[in-house]
Amino acid sequence: MYAVRLPFAQTSGLCDNRFMLLKRWLVGDPLKTAQARHERLSKTIALAIFSSNAISSVAYATEEILLVLILAGAAAVAWSIPVSLAILFLVLVLTISYRQIIYEYPEGGGAYTVAKSNLGELPALVAAGALMIDYVLTVAVSVAAGVAALTSAIPSLFIHREAVGLVAILFMVLMNLRGVRESGKFFAVPTYFAIGALSLLVIVGIAKSLLRGDAMAPPTNPAGASADLENLTLFLILRSFAAGCSAVTGMEVISNGVKAFRHPESKNAATTMIWMSVILASLFMGISWMAYHSGILPKADETLVSQLARLTFDTGAIYYTVQISTMVLLVLAANSAFAGFPHLASILARDGFMPHQMATFGDRLVFSNGIIILGFFACLLLVVFQGNTHALIPLYAIGVFVSFTLSQAGMVKRWLAKKGVHWRKKLIVNGVGAVTTGIATVIIASTKFLHGAWIVFLLVAVLILMFQGIRSHYRAVSEQIALDRRGERPPLPRRNIVIIPISGLNRAVVRAVDYARSRPGEVRAIYVDLDPEESAKVKIQWAQWGGGINLIARPSPYRSVLGSLLEYIEEILEKEPNTWVTVVIPEILPARWWQNILHNQRALMLKAALLFKDRVIIIDVPFHLTR
Amino acid sequence: MYAVRLPFAQTSGLCDNRFMLLKRWLVGDPLKTAQARHERLSKTIALAIFSSNAISSVAYATEEILLVLILAGAAAVAWSIPVSLAILFLVLVLTISYRQIIYEYPEGGGAYTVAKSNLGELPALVAAGALMIDYVLTVAVSVAAGVAALTSAIPSLFIHREAVGLVAILFMVLMNLRGVRESGKFFAVPTYFAIGALSLLVIVGIAKSLLRGDAMAPPTNPAGASADLENLTLFLILRSFAAGCSAVTGMEVISNGVKAFRHPESKNAATTMIWMSVILASLFMGISWMAYHSGILPKADETLVSQLARLTFDTGAIYYTVQISTMVLLVLAANSAFAGFPHLASILARDGFMPHQMATFGDRLVFSNGIIILGFFACLLLVVFQGNTHALIPLYAIGVFVSFTLSQAGMVKRWLAKKGVHWRKKLIVNGVGAVTTGIATVIIASTKFLHGAWIVFLLVAVLILMFQGIRSHYRAVSEQIALDRRGERPPLPRRNIVIIPISGLNRAVVRAVDYARSRPGEVRAIYVDLDPEESAKVKIQWAQWGGGINLIARPSPYRSVLGSLLEYIEEILEKEPNTWVTVVIPEILPARWWQNILHNQRALMLKAALLFKDRVIIIDVPFHLTR
Repeated sequence: MYAVRLPFAQTSGLCDNRFMLLKRWLVGDPLKTAQARHERLSKTIALAIFSSNAISSVAYATEEILLVLILAGAAAVAWSIPVSLAILFLVLVLTISYRQIIYEYPEGGGAYTVAKSNLGELPALVAAGALMIDYVLTVAVSVAAGVAALTSAIPSLFIHREAVGLVAILFMVLMNLRGVRESGKFFAVPTYFAIGALSLLVIVGIAKSLLRGDAMAPPTNPAGASADLENLTLFLILRSFAAGCSAVTGMEVISNGVKAFRHPESKNAATTMIWMSVILASLFMGISWMAYHSGILPKADETLVSQLARLTFDTGAIYYTVQISTMVLLVLAANSAFAGFPHLASILARDGFMPHQMATFGDRLVFSNGIIILGFFACLLLVVFQGNTHALIPLYAIGVFVSFTLSQAGMVKRWLAKKGVHWRKKLIVNGVGAVTTGIATVIIASTKFLHGAWIVFLLVAVLILMFQGIRSHYRAVSEQIALDRRGERPPLPRRNIVIIPISGLNRAVVRAVDYARSRPGEVRAIYVDLDPEESAKVKIQWAQWGGGINLIARPSPYRSVLGSLLEYIEEILEKEPNTWVTVVIPEILPARWWQNILHNQRALMLKAALLFKDRVIIIDVPFHLTR
Repeated sequence: MYAVRLPFAQTSGLCDNRFMLLKRWLVGDPLKTAQARHERLSKTIALAIFSSNAISSVAYATEEILLVLILAGAAAVAWSIPVSLAILFLVLVLTISYRQIIYEYPEGGGAYTVAKSNLGELPALVAAGALMIDYVLTVAVSVAAGVAALTSAIPSLFIHREAVGLVAILFMVLMNLRGVRESGKFFAVPTYFAIGALSLLVIVGIAKSLLRGDAMAPPTNPAGASADLENLTLFLILRSFAAGCSAVTGMEVISNGVKAFRHPESKNAATTMIWMSVILASLFMGISWMAYHSGILPKADETLVSQLARLTFDTGAIYYTVQISTMVLLVLAANSAFAGFPHLASILARDGFMPHQMATFGDRLVFSNGIIILGFFACLLLVVFQGNTHALIPLYAIGVFVSFTLSQAGMVKRWLAKKGVHWRKKLIVNGVGAVTTGIATVIIASTKFLHGAWIVFLLVAVLILMFQGIRSHYRAVSEQIALDRRGERPPLPRRNIVIIPISGLNRAVVRAVDYARSRPGEVRAIYVDLDPEESAKVKIQWAQWGGGINLIARPSPYRSVLGSLLEYIEEILEKEPNTWVTVVIPEILPARWWQNILHNQRALMLKAALLFKDRVIIIDVPFHLTR
């Protein structure tokens, strides 16, 4: 059974079996359409895939809050608890309001879909642009934070953090090209292991802290600065809230992927959403509480979680377990983006806002093109920001909150229009969601604007222009290639003159001659006469090898073979307005690609010259060299 | 009259008339073969073209000698006179021995030709590699020195010296693409003007110096170092000689270009050679004498000639005239390389050591490909060495002296083998030449080796490997495409099945269908059935637009259109070993190149997959979009 169906570059012809074997080994066997139904996820697997994004942010969210607050001195760190509580409120609001979206959009209720069906095209494109950027940032931030967890435990890897991050992204791209269920299984075990390890850290840490009785102890200040609150402004508190909002990124992931759940999809997804929120909230609050009560502050070369784990377990086996599993969780978090990004791109492609090929299924039932593009841009971001989590955070969250707000606002409009059972209650839930996330969006945008959020706004605008440009191009093409409604065939040439330009005789030319002879009709060979002696030789050879085809010799006053050929073709086109001219070019295909520079220059020029002539069709008849 | 014959990229199709007009304006009208005879040069014009390289080196040769000597202190500068006399001796020897080459090789006696016909292939390739590198260096060094002459007069341009140099090279490339005679006329006037200006400088300068009576005055030392000769070693003296050898580079140019002279070619060339040597020797010795007797030493931001001109004429109109004309002379010197490099490349291409297209005449009777390659590498060198003459000089001359030595050694072997009239006298002349240039080569190689000459040796080795690799590839190809001696035709398929893969119906598809129908024979359309509803629609449309061609619907269990098509083609190839399969692909050609990313991905994959299937031929039938 022939089974080549590469999603990207169809390279089977180039290196055939060796390549296919490698590909099989890397991404697995192709699956039949009938298998697609079985690719659905159980709640346990789905929780691992869809919640690693949200939960993993506990690894850095508290640290980001503290990093802003300590700008106002060590005493300001006390504000981390009220800020964390505000974020806890956000988690609550988002959980309740997203459950409503899950039930209302069982086909997958991404911000783009909800905004498009309720608010119109432009808000939908804003949401799509914001989400796309955030998917890329999710991968970059999660991988950077994962690498930071690793280098906290193994400081000698610190200088290699960029390379480690790039390898991690590449690994995920390959895993995702293997298809959704296998990567689900692959990722579920370590995700649960990491949740367990972090829970252990929080439980043991809080217990030890309470036993030590260091509750409410004012945090020590390692830098020795005086502990006053003079520098603490409202702006700084809001900025620390904005930084902490990175904790709730990823909460929307389940609502995008309802279709991936087993039946009943919406109910399973809603249940999974609650599990995820409970785990996220507990771990986040636990870590914030521990950081405050132990008086630990962020350090440049070690993460906050690493410091807490060292304090709780000392630097032993349990400490390393926590660090490594945190790292694995963060790297896996990026995986949710690898499910979401290609899905969004394919929805956009189906609406004509992205290139059509983004909508194509790959051979593992996944959207291969989107996976590879996401991997590429995440790598780019990681390199540009040198693998630094803190540098990436100001760009993060803003896109997610824009899409949160648009989703909730869309739901509000939906209830107002649609009404239905309990619509007032539902309206209030999504209304609170819209207002809350709206306020958070304004806070994030205003406090982070100069720290990098402006880049996101600029990119969203660029993406919207791109979406619209692509669609208007596709529309223009559709109009141009549409068939005549009255069924009138455009007047097309009925005759077809085949021309073989030759400059001498060899096996490649003979092959082209035999190809041209394989169909009946008018065939002519053209020889450009530069040198009478050479010309006579060619004519004698042609008598033997030309297969009875008429050889026309053309003079060339300008020593230009190309010019004379073009002249001849032009003459035919002019004389016979009802004729196709088919140019059969014998082409030598070298065994190695770089040898091309030594061949076919003339053929290339001829093709370039003929490319825009409407009735000229070019046929390459390749002759394969073996060495 | 149709007259497109671009040597490089045949772009006429792409932008047609606008491009042609621009090209006409830049490089002039194409010339007929019959005009080639009239492109011969008079002695006056030939002197300007072929000697600017040699003569212009007086602008930097003396300075390079002094730059080495002052490393041993100011008193060591007195050695510049004996070193200059040694170089004068070289000029004498080279003039006499090259005249013999000119008479012996009226077709052009470049080092490659002489070495190939007398010493064998490897020495010839050494000479060719050395010469190629030296042509590039001639352009880079001359332009850098020319720009230094300019910035000496206008110091504010110093920071822009790289850009000025690049513009100068680009200008020369264009001039040379216009063809040899016009650039000859263009360059003759300023060459003679510059020779006049430099002669005036030398005559007035020496006269004033003698009148001032500063003859034999010990040079002053602006750096204030003690004037002892302790540091002056033999090595340093030899190194200063090696640096000064840059003065004789370019003396071989006339012998390469004998064919460009009017009849009698050899006699005219030999006479021109003497004129050139006399001018070169006088100017070089004059400048060396003036520099020594005025006690002027090299400065970083002003050339030696500029200092001498300021001293002689003050900073007025005459000073500026000397500087600007020196600059123009140096820039034009690079022009001799633009005649020599493409010529050498074409000779090598004819022997199979360079890509065949290097042997192609351009439309202005010049070797356009070589001109553009030379310009490119000279620009590269200028950028890498930041437009600094002194940094480039250590690489220079070594290649020329290697080829000098090989030429003279070849002539020695020629006289020994051929004998003939006065052969003993001729043998002695070339023998002295071979020994002298051989010693100079050893001196240059040993004293400059670590300063950059090693790069040249390395590159020569790389070039030789390249030459041999190219030839062995062409030989392998010739063997593979050679026709059977007994006249036996290889068994080739006699049948030809035409397949049109379609995924729906539009004007592009209808066009492809009509093309396929324009020749009699077997045509089938293939549709891959992904969705029964869509499939039914296509079948109805096909009945109207398919032109009676049979539509075959193929199932696709793997959702892969490409896979199903390949499977179908494979089946035909397997079942019918005596059949070509012609795949006609309707291709949408967007109005703008970047729009290609939005189209034809499937066609591209199909083509890549079929590229290496021996009996499959692909035909693109383009459909041109207008917006």
